[in-house]
Amino acid sequence: MRLSRYHHFTYREVPNDAVVASHRLMIRAGFIKKVAAGIYTYMPMGLRTIRKVEAIVREEMNRAGAVELLMPAVCPAELWQESKRWQFYGPELLRLKDRKGADFCVGPTHEEVVTDTVRQDVRSYRQLPFHLYQIQTKFRDEARPRFGLMRGREFIMKDGYSFHADDEDAKREYWVMYETYRRIFGRCGLKFKAVFAATGNIGGTLSHEFQVLADSGEDAILSCSKCDYAANVEKAACLPPAGSPSEAPRGLQKVATPGKRTVEEVTAFLGVPAAQLVKTLVYVADGTPGAALVRGDHELNEAKLKSLLGCNELSIADDETVTKATGAPVGFAGPVGLKLKLVADETIKAMANFVTGANAADAHYVNTNAGRDFNVETSGDIRTAIPGDRCAKEGCAGVYEAHRGIEVGQVFFLGTKYSHEMHAIYLDEHGKEHPIVMGCYGIGIGRTAAAAIEQNHDADGIVWPMPIAPFQAALLRLGAEVKDEAERVYRDLLDAGVEVLFDDREERPGVMFKDADLVGIPVRVSVGKKSLEKGGAELKLRRDKTVQIVPIAEVGAHVKAIVNQELARCRPDQPE
Amino acid sequence: MRLSRYHHFTYREVPNDAVVASHRLMIRAGFIKKVAAGIYTYMPMGLRTIRKVEAIVREEMNRAGAVELLMPAVCPAELWQESKRWQFYGPELLRLKDRKGADFCVGPTHEEVVTDTVRQDVRSYRQLPFHLYQIQTKFRDEARPRFGLMRGREFIMKDGYSFHADDEDAKREYWVMYETYRRIFGRCGLKFKAVFAATGNIGGTLSHEFQVLADSGEDAILSCSKCDYAANVEKAACLPPAGSPSEAPRGLQKVATPGKRTVEEVTAFLGVPAAQLVKTLVYVADGTPGAALVRGDHELNEAKLKSLLGCNELSIADDETVTKATGAPVGFAGPVGLKLKLVADETIKAMANFVTGANAADAHYVNTNAGRDFNVETSGDIRTAIPGDRCAKEGCAGVYEAHRGIEVGQVFFLGTKYSHEMHAIYLDEHGKEHPIVMGCYGIGIGRTAAAAIEQNHDADGIVWPMPIAPFQAALLRLGAEVKDEAERVYRDLLDAGVEVLFDDREERPGVMFKDADLVGIPVRVSVGKKSLEKGGAELKLRRDKTVQIVPIAEVGAHVKAIVNQELARCRPDQPE
Repeated sequence: MRLSRYHHFTYREVPNDAVVASHRLMIRAGFIKKVAAGIYTYMPMGLRTIRKVEAIVREEMNRAGAVELLMPAVCPAELWQESKRWQFYGPELLRLKDRKGADFCVGPTHEEVVTDTVRQDVRSYRQLPFHLYQIQTKFRDEARPRFGLMRGREFIMKDGYSFHADDEDAKREYWVMYETYRRIFGRCGLKFKAVFAATGNIGGTLSHEFQVLADSGEDAILSCSKCDYAANVEKAACLPPAGSPSEAPRGLQKVATPGKRTVEEVTAFLGVPAAQLVKTLVYVADGTPGAALVRGDHELNEAKLKSLLGCNELSIADDETVTKATGAPVGFAGPVGLKLKLVADETIKAMANFVTGANAADAHYVNTNAGRDFNVETSGDIRTAIPGDRCAKEGCAGVYEAHRGIEVGQVFFLGTKYSHEMHAIYLDEHGKEHPIVMGCYGIGIGRTAAAAIEQNHDADGIVWPMPIAPFQAALLRLGAEVKDEAERVYRDLLDAGVEVLFDDREERPGVMFKDADLVGIPVRVSVGKKSLEKGGAELKLRRDKTVQIVPIAEVGAHVKAIVNQELARCRPDQPE
Repeated sequence: MRLSRYHHFTYREVPNDAVVASHRLMIRAGFIKKVAAGIYTYMPMGLRTIRKVEAIVREEMNRAGAVELLMPAVCPAELWQESKRWQFYGPELLRLKDRKGADFCVGPTHEEVVTDTVRQDVRSYRQLPFHLYQIQTKFRDEARPRFGLMRGREFIMKDGYSFHADDEDAKREYWVMYETYRRIFGRCGLKFKAVFAATGNIGGTLSHEFQVLADSGEDAILSCSKCDYAANVEKAACLPPAGSPSEAPRGLQKVATPGKRTVEEVTAFLGVPAAQLVKTLVYVADGTPGAALVRGDHELNEAKLKSLLGCNELSIADDETVTKATGAPVGFAGPVGLKLKLVADETIKAMANFVTGANAADAHYVNTNAGRDFNVETSGDIRTAIPGDRCAKEGCAGVYEAHRGIEVGQVFFLGTKYSHEMHAIYLDEHGKEHPIVMGCYGIGIGRTAAAAIEQNHDADGIVWPMPIAPFQAALLRLGAEVKDEAERVYRDLLDAGVEVLFDDREERPGVMFKDADLVGIPVRVSVGKKSLEKGGAELKLRRDKTVQIVPIAEVGAHVKAIVNQELARCRPDQPE
């Protein structure tokens, strides 16, 4: 493609609302153009990358035996009423009326439509299992659309739905998709983690998020240093402590801690590490106050506490409730003598002689010991895991490491939620009715492209991984006097099967280099008077600084070899 | 693809609302499934054909130098307000409000969005010309969605927009697209006509429709027997008569025609041909009555009359107006002595001694002659052309032939309508501002697939042209005892690069044959005990009845040769 005939522009200005790198760079490098808040046009350069991500997704979905179809964007309300999501979905669902006043929505996801399609055709267990997917433009009316394609309103998504006779078969497909998603993101050239996302208490559901690792990622992830366990930090499980307290209990002692309320203040004042203190946090569960004990350097995880207590509503108590329950100002709560039900994190079991609040102003206890000084009613995993914690996977000797990530895909064992509501049933071999068991599987196409940029950019612009770069090579013609040589290299690159963008504009070399860096095409070939004097064309990879001179006649084969090598690096079986 | 693993079903029932063949067959053969009125899911089989049409369109658009992008489906009202189409568009525009109450529409076409995109980047004549296109799901809230994909509400369309410095360059691109569209529909394997659709009086606009020829087509077309001129019947131009009247005028004579009002009644009663009578039609143009004269066997074309008169409003007069203007009951109007402005079709010039109404009840004149008996104020082409008329193209000796067609594409010279309203301007070499001159070009992707069926089907089902068939070959395994042979043929066909659908179901041969015919895959290969006894597999083309036996080892190569031959028949330079 000749740039002079390609509708492509780059920009110096950074739009005001672009706070993350991918948004900023996609706009500046001419990949997308804003039409309204969270609504973009994919410009020609951007569409090329989108199509490459789509092609990889399609190939791998087909390889896994899933079958592509295309459902409507504008979906009738009746189906959403049947699943009850018409009522439950908030303003994120873009609702509208047609000319006859009938209700519709612009589909943000298609469980209802696909379940309706399937229930019309499926009668027998013999027709199961199967997996249908589509790649489609969807709409979610986000309250705060931001970050460009990362949290847009209109977006392109691959959504797949599988249908099974039982849980076991649905879980088999779940793991096929888990593996397929690993192949997809591996083939896109991305570093990612498959992150456990099941909460364990929502009726046996199972889910993994696929997180592209990037410092700018919104999600905090913990992954094991040895095995493949990884989880959203909020969801990572903590093991109980390995041993019992190593110290013998010493005598409980009340000490004055004037004005020292926080863990930092108290431990600094007493000259002990934070891990030697136990925090007492008053909460209200379904209207009843209680107290949760976690180690001073740990954070209470409310989701885990709620799950352990099995309550519906849980919140941290307000100051008034704390004062009333402890008889002391906030900052001095402690388990000793406290008239509240005590729930302790399992870590406490391994602690002896720790510091706690004394339920009195300006006072703490030292050498507190559970069992002797207070009794715990319930013990369990109620803290948020931290880097260095032992991996929760059975028998694994690894420890957690911290990462930040961008969620680009999710696989989900759905069970019979939709098939039950919408009466999508099959008859087993004995003629008995069962709801079809379902799984669903999504990939954000534009989000994957954006995440790739978050993971791969520098001060000058994007550094595309080869498999999803809009072009594989950029050819720069530095000056009109090298027209013939540049044209020859262009033809050779095309003949070698390289996807090349030929910058044939009459621009200053500085502008061309800057644009090439901004757009981030992996291989740069420049032909100029100077390079010819040195023996050929100058060749440089976007991701490093070294340049080499390649004889004009060899550029095509040389670049093709680099492209093949780079694509081979992004193997589907890329280890995490 | 193995049918046992493909999500595909056929149906015996014809849906009540399916009145045309393509609708009926697409539903029955499992290509589409209705979700709401005019809204369909493209089932896996249907999506394959859609994608094939898209691929041909994309290849040819790229070949012509157009550049693909993708604009949003949900478009902000502001842009439509700027072009004033927000106000002018009726309920066909699907309007909606987002969560903040801002107005949007689901785009039925994208002149506004593309013009907005372009005006942000284009400054100079040096940036022109260029052509941007997209393939996108669109929505038009039709009052009466019908005919399946032929007149749906949600539909897939290729829409392209070109931008130019002047009319001349825009017209150059217009003819490039004209040729590109001919290549596209030719490559789809369709018989079609490029039909002149310009009216000549709407400010120099120029337009062609591409019509797939089919007896069931909604549009009547006339095309020349010798040259490539073709036009919608309403728009086909008529030449003035070749010569002058061949008879000498005879004496005007009033004859009694009791109760004879219609052309048929009068000419039968008088024993003359309809071509010997001149109809006098009273009309009202911008409030003023007048009379139009056309030959008895011709039809007045109101669009042409309106254009000739240069009026804003035109209608045929009601009975009261006719009676008042002629002094006679309806059916006896005539030019002789009539106190109205007379406009005559040019055909009248070549007529002598014709029959006209006498402006009196139950009376006509015979031997009427223009110039002697009445005077025509204006003469021109005001009739609808008919088969057998001489072709209007200069110097052409052909005559018009009648066809019926389905419009699948249209090319349009837009001029500066949108660029003027939306201030999309460029600076010429002297720094002077001009509105950018535009063209637009659309192809209905689903409509093309439906039109292909209208043109290619029989009592048993669809007969796909090879280039857009969902699969190129169907392989039928007739009985479990030929499993090994069928598997071998399947592998060989895949190895030969044939897109094959393998019917590996355990169904009766009759069911498999019926399904294969309904779905319409071009080549059918069946392997059964009988065919093996005869020496191999049975091979049959969907479009004819003859079968042949091909040795098992040769099936792959044989079918591949047929596929290549069929694809070669659908050359882009297919003559009309």
